[in-house]
Amino acid sequence: MKVKVIVTLKEGVLDPQGKAIQQTLNGMSFSDVKEVRQGKYFDIEVNTEDEKKAKAKVEEMCKKLLANLVIENYKIL
Amino acid sequence: MKVKVIVTLKEGVLDPQGKAIQQTLNGMSFSDVKEVRQGKYFDIEVNTEDEKKAKAKVEEMCKKLLANLVIENYKIL
Repeated sequence: MKVKVIVTLKEGVLDPQGKAIQQTLNGMSFSDVKEVRQGKYFDIEVNTEDEKKAKAKVEEMCKKLLANLVIENYKIL
Repeated sequence: MKVKVIVTLKEGVLDPQGKAIQQTLNGMSFSDVKEVRQGKYFDIEVNTEDEKKAKAKVEEMCKKLLANLVIENYKIL
């Protein structure tokens, strides 16, 4: 089954990429954009149909590889 | 209000970054990972409380800047 994960920067961590997107949008007639934060998205196909097991596996992957827990949060959808 | 967007590569478009993550996971005792596709996630704060208007604005942003519609799909959450 497929498991979807979103990895975002923690609040307070600077996001220059998001800031650049915000400024570009502001300059493109989207003046009402106050903030943009960019994150990562992963679509992971795991070889099991057991949802609980698959999500537990993906959580382990997040902790070990996909997210840097010092500055990032992850959310399994 | 905040609007969340996910931008993913269309099916059939090669994703070398996702492939590299998959191979790394396979080498880290996660041998049951069949495929990984990576995408982008945006958290956009728009200066309006009208959900419909905010989402319409963000859809326009996706078309004009955030997604390359030739190879990417977007999904507004």
